[in-house]
Amino acid sequence: MTPAQTALLQALTPILGDKGIVTDPALIAPWEVDWRRRFSGHAPAILAPADTGQVQAVLRAATEHRVRLVPQGGNSSMVGGATPPDDGSALILSMRRMNRIRRMDADAGMVVAEAGVILADLHAAAEAEGVRFPLTLGAKGNATVGGLVSTNAGGTQVLRFGTMRGLTLGVEAVLPDGSLHDGLSALKKDNRGYDLGQLLIGAEGTLGIVTAAALRLAPGIARSATAWVGLSDPAAGLTLLRRLQAATDMIESFEIMPAESLAAAVAHLPGARAPLEGTHPWHVLIEAVTGDAQADPTAMLETQLARALEDGVVADAVIAASDSQAEAFWLLRHSLSDAERALGPAVQHDIAVPVDAMPRFMVEAAAACDARFPGTHASGFGHLGDGNIHFHVRAAPGTDRDRFYAEDAATITRFVHDLVMAAGGTISAEHGIGQMKRDELARLSPERVAAIRAIKTALDPHGLFNPGKLVACA
Amino acid sequence: MTPAQTALLQALTPILGDKGIVTDPALIAPWEVDWRRRFSGHAPAILAPADTGQVQAVLRAATEHRVRLVPQGGNSSMVGGATPPDDGSALILSMRRMNRIRRMDADAGMVVAEAGVILADLHAAAEAEGVRFPLTLGAKGNATVGGLVSTNAGGTQVLRFGTMRGLTLGVEAVLPDGSLHDGLSALKKDNRGYDLGQLLIGAEGTLGIVTAAALRLAPGIARSATAWVGLSDPAAGLTLLRRLQAATDMIESFEIMPAESLAAAVAHLPGARAPLEGTHPWHVLIEAVTGDAQADPTAMLETQLARALEDGVVADAVIAASDSQAEAFWLLRHSLSDAERALGPAVQHDIAVPVDAMPRFMVEAAAACDARFPGTHASGFGHLGDGNIHFHVRAAPGTDRDRFYAEDAATITRFVHDLVMAAGGTISAEHGIGQMKRDELARLSPERVAAIRAIKTALDPHGLFNPGKLVACA
Repeated sequence: MTPAQTALLQALTPILGDKGIVTDPALIAPWEVDWRRRFSGHAPAILAPADTGQVQAVLRAATEHRVRLVPQGGNSSMVGGATPPDDGSALILSMRRMNRIRRMDADAGMVVAEAGVILADLHAAAEAEGVRFPLTLGAKGNATVGGLVSTNAGGTQVLRFGTMRGLTLGVEAVLPDGSLHDGLSALKKDNRGYDLGQLLIGAEGTLGIVTAAALRLAPGIARSATAWVGLSDPAAGLTLLRRLQAATDMIESFEIMPAESLAAAVAHLPGARAPLEGTHPWHVLIEAVTGDAQADPTAMLETQLARALEDGVVADAVIAASDSQAEAFWLLRHSLSDAERALGPAVQHDIAVPVDAMPRFMVEAAAACDARFPGTHASGFGHLGDGNIHFHVRAAPGTDRDRFYAEDAATITRFVHDLVMAAGGTISAEHGIGQMKRDELARLSPERVAAIRAIKTALDPHGLFNPGKLVACA
Repeated sequence: MTPAQTALLQALTPILGDKGIVTDPALIAPWEVDWRRRFSGHAPAILAPADTGQVQAVLRAATEHRVRLVPQGGNSSMVGGATPPDDGSALILSMRRMNRIRRMDADAGMVVAEAGVILADLHAAAEAEGVRFPLTLGAKGNATVGGLVSTNAGGTQVLRFGTMRGLTLGVEAVLPDGSLHDGLSALKKDNRGYDLGQLLIGAEGTLGIVTAAALRLAPGIARSATAWVGLSDPAAGLTLLRRLQAATDMIESFEIMPAESLAAAVAHLPGARAPLEGTHPWHVLIEAVTGDAQADPTAMLETQLARALEDGVVADAVIAASDSQAEAFWLLRHSLSDAERALGPAVQHDIAVPVDAMPRFMVEAAAACDARFPGTHASGFGHLGDGNIHFHVRAAPGTDRDRFYAEDAATITRFVHDLVMAAGGTISAEHGIGQMKRDELARLSPERVAAIRAIKTALDPHGLFNPGKLVACA
């Protein structure tokens, strides 16, 4: 521990108390490694404030003593965004003790949740009031509100409800100087210059610490329907999506995958089987949901899919006959990553292009990748309706795992990212930049990064907040 | 003209051509005064680039020669946001020549419009394609896309569609260093760190120049219905609004006004008459709109208003029987400001508080104001559904107009703003800060302004862009 860190802990002990400062290495260790074990670091202590006032005290003291802080929620970052640096220069600022739901107003469709509230707990709390918080994702049992806001998280319901940015009505945060940004009153109109709340959404904790957020709630689910569709190519998928969107506002998920991904998932999951008879090159999972008990998403899907079958837009389709069948469909979708990983080393890319450009991109980028790296195999699956897929490139059979990750992966990633940029896309759709994509962002968007760095330096002049993530500073 | 300005014009002449540089004082004069004639200044020249490349050239040259620029669209700011300073130190950067609609995609619900496109022209272009751009406001014949984005403008349709921030899918802008921020591809998910587009929305041209925006379109209007309702107080108005919002998503406008405002408008407009017989303390104008030809907004309003009459929530109501009657209702609403102005000198405040707090605020703030400034008369009208009203304080009868504006107005405004802040509100709901509210913002929100100033200084280190607006810099 550096002398500055020691002095900081001394100053904070009377404020945070015993529960708020952890220095036992055994208790710190699990939080020094990301959940996928791709990144690791070292932190001499964890600070765990219990309320916003304590966060203010921590940030004031950290600025005074020039001690770096790495904010952490559920430690479920996909990009090493919450892992401390190796050199022990930063302490972890854990937000998990701030886990209160301060206010739930089902009538007004709004909840105020503290940064440490776990997503699954927020879902349960909303459901208990007959409403729901619609954003969801695989890590819902760990991911916290503060991290979801700070990474502008996505997930499988973005199609209808948007990302965290679209669901966040206001943010409470502590800025590096310890001042409070109180944006929780959730004014429907507020024109007071630069929107600091919007700036903090997606800032990955580099500009201050989000302590709570006012979030939008959606009506509870009255009825839902889940369909599995087989079709010839991604373009047909987009045609179907556009038809559905023109006909209804009930479409919440529209997930596409190639036959090989489905086959991998079926092989990977004990007892699983493909939802459709026969073979189809591409598959789509559709979820339609309504809060209106009078609406009938099943009938709507039946009508639309029957028409699409007649017109040749889709080759085959089935609507889940029960909740358990719908769950089985979703289990296949959620197993794709694990199933592909079981096939051998692969490098993943969380990328997006404009929705209209995605069908072509999926086909052409995979072909370009296969041609450029003989023996490897590229494929994409995911959120077609958002123009966001997870694009995987699997190593050639027999490739040494360590060599693949140490050498080939970076070359492949640069190639994929170049294709994405040429298509007007983004190298980070919903996972964030963190430490994993920081240098790629700088390579591909130097002017954007120059502006980001200028803002970062202005608000955090000593570079104390989540150092090394998102943007490299002097 | 300063030597630096002369050098700048020389450098830009080959790039902008004759049409792009105006130095004739007679042609400049109309743009040196705001449309309400509250603010005036002096600019030695107007620069009028024709495309984004020219804007980049202008910004690079301005930064090189250290010449200040005041961006201007339709010159319809309510807060002196587009008026040059007095001392001639800044040139006007007019965006009006950049008035192309680059792309209109009715199916995807998206239009890309350049900064100089006038709002009414955008409305017409969308209508020609069977869709619409839903934001509208009084200055629609002048206000431009660049100004609407840069002020995060509001208007009468915010209730359903949000402010410009909610309707803006992406922004193209030139940053002070001349670099292009190309955010037009309108990715549905993009997590590349700080959202520069969001930062530019509402930045009032102080961080760079918005050159184009990708905007969301709504379905064309298939059917609409307009109602006028009399009721006892604003709380009843909010109850009615909540009921309507629970029953339908068709409610686009919900405008409230006290009886005295309606009376002033009726007296002010030749041949106008009040929509309802009898007297009611408060009035509400409701507009329900649908893009679905099967939906029936008239029947919906009839059902809901009949129930509200039965329950005593409203005292009387009428649904416009024709388009011309609906227009007559709206004309009354749009005449309120002019009608009140005709009654004598008054100071206006564009303020918002949380929607639930607005009914009480309207009544209590007016009473507090009347008590504090004997003889004056305070009242508010406007967008109840947004928690945003225009709160006017009329001078005591016989007050000298000049003395009122020179002395009393500032005292009254500070008092009103203190009430607004105590209610968790904002001193600028939809008009922006400009030069009019700059010092009040600094007085009431010093920490917010410190962060704004840090960002401003980081991105515009020489203070060249819209100097003196929004935030005072050294």
